[in-house]
Amino acid sequence: MRIVVLAGGIGGARFLTGVRAHAREVGAEVTAVVNVGDDIRLHGLQICPDLDSVMYTLGGGADPERGWGRVGETWTVKEELAAYGAEPTWFGLGDRDLATHLVRTTMLNAGYPLSAVTEALCARWQPGVRLLPATDDRLETHVVVERDGEQQAIHFQEWWIRHRAQVPTRRFVFVGAESAKPAAGVLDALSVADVVLVAPSNPVVSIAPILAVPGIREALAGGRAPVVGVSPIIGTSPVRGMADRCLEVLDVECSAEGVGGLYGARSGGGILDGWLVDPVDAHTRVPDVTVRPAPLWMTDEAATVAMVRAALELA
Amino acid sequence: MRIVVLAGGIGGARFLTGVRAHAREVGAEVTAVVNVGDDIRLHGLQICPDLDSVMYTLGGGADPERGWGRVGETWTVKEELAAYGAEPTWFGLGDRDLATHLVRTTMLNAGYPLSAVTEALCARWQPGVRLLPATDDRLETHVVVERDGEQQAIHFQEWWIRHRAQVPTRRFVFVGAESAKPAAGVLDALSVADVVLVAPSNPVVSIAPILAVPGIREALAGGRAPVVGVSPIIGTSPVRGMADRCLEVLDVECSAEGVGGLYGARSGGGILDGWLVDPVDAHTRVPDVTVRPAPLWMTDEAATVAMVRAALELA
Repeated sequence: MRIVVLAGGIGGARFLTGVRAHAREVGAEVTAVVNVGDDIRLHGLQICPDLDSVMYTLGGGADPERGWGRVGETWTVKEELAAYGAEPTWFGLGDRDLATHLVRTTMLNAGYPLSAVTEALCARWQPGVRLLPATDDRLETHVVVERDGEQQAIHFQEWWIRHRAQVPTRRFVFVGAESAKPAAGVLDALSVADVVLVAPSNPVVSIAPILAVPGIREALAGGRAPVVGVSPIIGTSPVRGMADRCLEVLDVECSAEGVGGLYGARSGGGILDGWLVDPVDAHTRVPDVTVRPAPLWMTDEAATVAMVRAALELA
Repeated sequence: MRIVVLAGGIGGARFLTGVRAHAREVGAEVTAVVNVGDDIRLHGLQICPDLDSVMYTLGGGADPERGWGRVGETWTVKEELAAYGAEPTWFGLGDRDLATHLVRTTMLNAGYPLSAVTEALCARWQPGVRLLPATDDRLETHVVVERDGEQQAIHFQEWWIRHRAQVPTRRFVFVGAESAKPAAGVLDALSVADVVLVAPSNPVVSIAPILAVPGIREALAGGRAPVVGVSPIIGTSPVRGMADRCLEVLDVECSAEGVGGLYGARSGGGILDGWLVDPVDAHTRVPDVTVRPAPLWMTDEAATVAMVRAALELA
């Protein structure tokens, strides 16, 4: 059995721990297609927060308390950069994490595509699933905000971390998406998949940038594999993060029904066959999509595995 | 009064603390022209060990025990790079130090010359002397060694740090020297100098690469300022480092007389007018060069200042 998961950062990483545990039980192969829209070059280093969140989490190197970055992290380089007045100072660049970016940037500068670099980094972490960036090309999520009455595009990380999404926001732009190609292996993985799962990641800034790569949405829509999504919203709140702020920008209701409708049914030009929602959202209706309730709090791996099983049964 | 000092790494840095102290007393301006032959790009970072040794030492950020690098240094990134199997692992890349390389590399990649980058870094460290790289162009000291009966060129750092200079060695090559130009400010500083001091740095791999930049040796030889060197050898031993190994490769005696002869008299096509040697080397003779003894152990700043005064008096 071959499972492909579309995933963003931390929510996607936690979901993937459940997918991996289930896959080990049944002998399935898992490929994660991971968002790169959050990627940013800072201090000359190419930083891929979502790929790293997944890699560290599955590799046992993530900080479970903080939710992002490395366990046992230190911040010496960050403090020194600030002492030089090197901007930006708002990004959480840890010392352990930084080594990953150094290795990645050195390889990218030597001409290796991000997919090959990710594979090389995973040789250390052994995540147990195949990690693929959605694209090897530049694709960055920028956010059009209003400042002093004028519209201005800032990088997603600046919007998210520096401004905590608390600025007047007009829209999201996936810079480079039109000319991006799916990374090596992505379309192959989708073409042989038995099921595609959409992780409970941020639909607007984690999943949408993946779907914005020409060819990926088409491969889902026209593929033989059923596509089942897992709602990132329980009741009216995101499981994690600031999906509510993102959905508000798109004028989409922050609910399982809102996000399900945003993805839409495969039969209607969307991507979903099935939509897993929390029991508190059992009333959810998405036209032409099979909605099924299952507990969606990823409190531990057992709960996450149960959620994954429910999604696969729905498929 | 304007003083120019040709300097390498740690010996040059200590000497410069004495020059600075003296200059503050008498109201002199100091420009240090620093070796870049040790510079190396590792893990995508441009590392300038000699410029940094001088900058950290004069800026109060150097580790006085270890002699190189930053005080309070940590090694997290280095350990993480090793965990990725990222070569080389033999270079001492500290976390604090690394921030300097990040800022430098980012500026170099943005197109700033090394001299401008050095000035920007010094805005933090306030070394109290003007630091100039010998050149803004690529100039790297490589070492031709014998391996399995064949000659092979390796970077100076690999020879020095990895092999501790303990490999059969044929010669030193200053890669890029022929086409290098003196960095912005170097020839101007030499043309208005009242005196030029050659620090007690390694003559073969710290001072020679500076002199290998076309125009610098000529500016010394034809300039109006007297040039006084300070011997890096006391008796038969280098004050610090492995100058003995380097001199052996050139078949030059490891003594004040050997190094004085290597530099040679200005009147004979060399660079020296005066040569300061330790009292134990008072017998030293260098044709057409005024040799004078003074204690050369830089045990503390007062001793170093006395040494600088003796050199200036000789000038």
